[in-house]
Amino acid sequence: MGMRKIFRKLATVEEAAAVIRESFTVEDFKVELIPLTDALGRILAEDVASPLDVPGFDRSAMDGYAVRAEDTFGADETRPVSLRLKGRVEAGHSVELEVSVGEAVEVSTGAPIPRGANAVVMVEYTMENDGAIQVFRSASPGENITSAGSDISIGEVILRRGSTITYREMGVLAALGLSQVKVYAKPKVAILSTGDELASPGSTLKNFQVYDVNSYSLFAAVREAGCIPIMMGVVGDDELKFKSSLTKALTSSDVVITSGSTSAGFGDMMYRVLEELEPGSILIHGLSVKPGKPTVIARVMGKPIFGLPGYPASAMTIFNLLVKPYLASLTRLQPPGGSVVEARFAMKLVKALGRRELMPVHVIREDGGGLVAYPILKGSGAVTSFSLADGYIDVPAHLNFLEEGEVVNVHLYSPRLKPADLVLIGSHCPAVDCAVSMLINRDPSCRVKAVNVGSTAGLNAAVRGEADLAGIHLLHSSGVYNEPYIKNKPLQLVRGYNRVQGFAFRKNVSFQGFDDLISGRLTFINRNRGSGTRVLIDMLLEDYCRRANLSFRQAAARIKGFNVECKTHSSVASAVKTGKADVGVVMEAYAAWYDLNFKPISVEEYDFAVRRDKVNKPEVKAFIETLKSDEFKVEAEARIPGVTVPEDAGEFKL
Amino acid sequence: MGMRKIFRKLATVEEAAAVIRESFTVEDFKVELIPLTDALGRILAEDVASPLDVPGFDRSAMDGYAVRAEDTFGADETRPVSLRLKGRVEAGHSVELEVSVGEAVEVSTGAPIPRGANAVVMVEYTMENDGAIQVFRSASPGENITSAGSDISIGEVILRRGSTITYREMGVLAALGLSQVKVYAKPKVAILSTGDELASPGSTLKNFQVYDVNSYSLFAAVREAGCIPIMMGVVGDDELKFKSSLTKALTSSDVVITSGSTSAGFGDMMYRVLEELEPGSILIHGLSVKPGKPTVIARVMGKPIFGLPGYPASAMTIFNLLVKPYLASLTRLQPPGGSVVEARFAMKLVKALGRRELMPVHVIREDGGGLVAYPILKGSGAVTSFSLADGYIDVPAHLNFLEEGEVVNVHLYSPRLKPADLVLIGSHCPAVDCAVSMLINRDPSCRVKAVNVGSTAGLNAAVRGEADLAGIHLLHSSGVYNEPYIKNKPLQLVRGYNRVQGFAFRKNVSFQGFDDLISGRLTFINRNRGSGTRVLIDMLLEDYCRRANLSFRQAAARIKGFNVECKTHSSVASAVKTGKADVGVVMEAYAAWYDLNFKPISVEEYDFAVRRDKVNKPEVKAFIETLKSDEFKVEAEARIPGVTVPEDAGEFKL
Repeated sequence: MGMRKIFRKLATVEEAAAVIRESFTVEDFKVELIPLTDALGRILAEDVASPLDVPGFDRSAMDGYAVRAEDTFGADETRPVSLRLKGRVEAGHSVELEVSVGEAVEVSTGAPIPRGANAVVMVEYTMENDGAIQVFRSASPGENITSAGSDISIGEVILRRGSTITYREMGVLAALGLSQVKVYAKPKVAILSTGDELASPGSTLKNFQVYDVNSYSLFAAVREAGCIPIMMGVVGDDELKFKSSLTKALTSSDVVITSGSTSAGFGDMMYRVLEELEPGSILIHGLSVKPGKPTVIARVMGKPIFGLPGYPASAMTIFNLLVKPYLASLTRLQPPGGSVVEARFAMKLVKALGRRELMPVHVIREDGGGLVAYPILKGSGAVTSFSLADGYIDVPAHLNFLEEGEVVNVHLYSPRLKPADLVLIGSHCPAVDCAVSMLINRDPSCRVKAVNVGSTAGLNAAVRGEADLAGIHLLHSSGVYNEPYIKNKPLQLVRGYNRVQGFAFRKNVSFQGFDDLISGRLTFINRNRGSGTRVLIDMLLEDYCRRANLSFRQAAARIKGFNVECKTHSSVASAVKTGKADVGVVMEAYAAWYDLNFKPISVEEYDFAVRRDKVNKPEVKAFIETLKSDEFKVEAEARIPGVTVPEDAGEFKL
Repeated sequence: MGMRKIFRKLATVEEAAAVIRESFTVEDFKVELIPLTDALGRILAEDVASPLDVPGFDRSAMDGYAVRAEDTFGADETRPVSLRLKGRVEAGHSVELEVSVGEAVEVSTGAPIPRGANAVVMVEYTMENDGAIQVFRSASPGENITSAGSDISIGEVILRRGSTITYREMGVLAALGLSQVKVYAKPKVAILSTGDELASPGSTLKNFQVYDVNSYSLFAAVREAGCIPIMMGVVGDDELKFKSSLTKALTSSDVVITSGSTSAGFGDMMYRVLEELEPGSILIHGLSVKPGKPTVIARVMGKPIFGLPGYPASAMTIFNLLVKPYLASLTRLQPPGGSVVEARFAMKLVKALGRRELMPVHVIREDGGGLVAYPILKGSGAVTSFSLADGYIDVPAHLNFLEEGEVVNVHLYSPRLKPADLVLIGSHCPAVDCAVSMLINRDPSCRVKAVNVGSTAGLNAAVRGEADLAGIHLLHSSGVYNEPYIKNKPLQLVRGYNRVQGFAFRKNVSFQGFDDLISGRLTFINRNRGSGTRVLIDMLLEDYCRRANLSFRQAAARIKGFNVECKTHSSVASAVKTGKADVGVVMEAYAAWYDLNFKPISVEEYDFAVRRDKVNKPEVKAFIETLKSDEFKVEAEARIPGVTVPEDAGEFKL
């Protein structure tokens, strides 16, 4: 199993980029002739020389009268010249008339200039009367005449190979009479996800499967890069099937992207299959960059295969770093502007020395308009850390920390991404979702980012300024909710609403209280430390211990599952529903939604912490107004069991 | 004909925008369910709440061993803990195994956690040996376990109505198992061009027609705005046909855009038809902004009709100003970033007081990276002024000039537009086209803008810095080309090449020299003053006059057509070919391409003026290198009759 050691020779990103450049030469790529109406955003594959003069004839640039300029010399407001009106020519019509001395012909904009005339007098400087016109201004030769070929002359190269076709180029091609245009063909990129645990969206999950994310995000990113994505679907950890899918992908496309199954720990299938398809095909066996270590680059049948890591955030980072620039060299598309933005780094952060790190960040617009970049500290395996990330910052190997306030370049994942206007970080609650939806309904241009990390982490984010608002429900030993936790911090507290917390258990389970847990008859499932619900559980257990004359340590040791923590109401309800545990603490809504029995413990206060200097941010004010609204009370109480919105919702408590 | 006076009540742009807002309320627009793979760039029409927990079970975040954390407490490098290896679980497979005291189960990343285990030890901190593992580090409860719902919890609103779907949102929707998504339907926009003079690209031009530009540039702009353009084609100035096309457009679309036939001078057809379709339908009868005066806005069947001016640049300016924001309110698309850029205004420019002006500009990147905006002084009727314009600056009515160096906001017509890297302004020559093509072949990322305005105007543009290079061929009375014209200017002169100029005439015409023109037997066609060719003609005629003892004035008066000027070689050749004139002066290539007889006059020198401070700009150097290349000599001499490239091409003459 020498393969396991493959990551010992990691390549740098620069080395990998050089390998790509040298191994996959971009020859003159395929060219195709397409209808002009399909050409928006495509790249011209040839110089376009005009096949004709534009205009093809001398024409009037104005509505007015075609005259001999000489006949009007000396005319002014007081001494108009009178000319005989010989007739009229409209745009698009032939002209039989000729202008001789003392004559004029009425012309519309775009009409051909009659023989003999060498100027057009604008209608504003004339008066028509009984078959004659008075001209009040002298015209100079050539005035208001667009001469043949003066706009575009025959044979003139008017558009260049390599130009992007915008609406402007579409207009110019139309002006030349071209209804078709030669552009570079879009490269075809096959996309393949690997792993027994993956199911395609739209199908039903089997036990212990998750849905395939990478096929879809890569599909979109490949299309955004101007290529044609070909979805090859999911292939399990089956060597023969993988080999046949890869072969099919290679024959039907110009480039192949796989994701997953590149980790060295389990399943070296990827390496074996590539070696079998073409010995020596593997060019890169891993990268010395985080994330992205398990990246494989190979050449089979002369075509590139990019094997990306399985985690969505890692796969997309390596796609942006190495695959996208390669695709751009094929498509000739200029990278869209504005994809790198400057931001202040939000905190001091220590990283490992000696390894380049592409650190995913999310970007927030401050009140003043500047941007602040926050590192995403959740693991790269999470879909939400992927969905939160706006881009990454590139931290060189030789650095081991980033300073707070340091100016960094954020490489945006997509030019379509915009910084959020309002950021909520804290404890998850469906009532917050409800308020945010209302806010957006009122102002659809408001971009809200909501991140669920629990009360304590939310409070810290509010102190750092990362969160505009932090939803918290933290019970203090004094019996008071939230207020004691924001004292001595630069925060204010906005009243939110109340939620009922309690024990949830399956309908066929009999549960009275802690006795049933201490006895070991039922298995508990706990919440993570730092969450508001865990604070509640620990206080309840302390109360119980005082009454039962037990130490907290003893009680905790006796409760089966007390050390098994999970992070959400959902997770607790799901564990109870599936029998993994028998009892857990959740808010009433989740017991109802999972169809579980519910034994209420207490009514807790869910409020919002906001940093003092953010109180007047317009989006924060709008959110607070929403909390105050009747509509919010009606909606939240109707939709979320156990939630009640008090009179003073939206008021400042501190 | 009261209609003619309609422009007396012009609306301001703000008034027009208010009329649009009030008359066309944006109700909840149509929603459609589309496959996820079609969703890139679309706008979510509903909040998306997760139908499931992600992950749906507790899973391993690493390759390693599932253990009871308690069993590992105290383990370190020197005192490893030994656990019995009970088996292995791979991602996507069911787990029958349970972990009891002193046991471990091997797990791959993504595999479900066996019952009893509450932590995963990474493979790096273990050693496997004979059915047992040594653990070299103690694990804490929950370590390396992603618990059910910790990423996304069931019922959590994970994407919001109004969000743009980037590859990130595509990935998130896939993670939720959704293969379809509800988005706002794209508005359908019908596009109609009017005018007898218009022909559709791909068809053959009839006499005095030009190709329809607006249908195609509007088609592209409407698509770029996220709508579905419906091409209705060209309708002539025929009231019945126009009425029927407009009715068809209204029934098949949500919005109608027409262009042309809105001018008040000729053809009030547009007004009459709108009044007939629905009395009182016309809301706006013209705008007090330049360009865009002849703009009509009407409401028929409750739908908006935007009647834009016929000139391409005017039509697109009004589209950007009024139609695009309205379409954005329908699509909910955020306007793409970077569409307004700051630039220095290049010169002092006087404008009319009292009228707001949307001044088309082109934007050049300076050596330092800053942008300079140059007004486009060619009329809005020209396709090339349209193709040259990158955007416009909005000059308020109360200003009557712009200062040189003033910082202005340029509203880019399309976010796809990029400032040019190299700008050539001067006399048109096919050999310049040839050199530029070679330059781009070598560096496809180099964006070149070439503008043909004649030698004198090019020289002025080079002095102002607007042109990086000006192609000139100006004969001085001393008999020397070009050099005398750049003396006392901040310019240097780069040697170009030679071209043969001469008289062109139809093959059935007999022409010997000026005698045939002075006699009045043949009609001449002249070039515009300021062009290099006109300078040559005037000098030749002066020579002739000295010999013939005539004054220049007398000679000019005797030559038929001497006052008929046109601006290009093409235009002269075309006039001669079609019999509008008999003789003109062109470079040899145009006589050959138009199949005309050619009588050489002189070999002229075509050189390039460059401002001293631009000599070291990389793109200027690259262009000069191209002139020096053998390839240019071979290509230019083979392709362009009468051009010879001398030994010293590309050398500095001054």
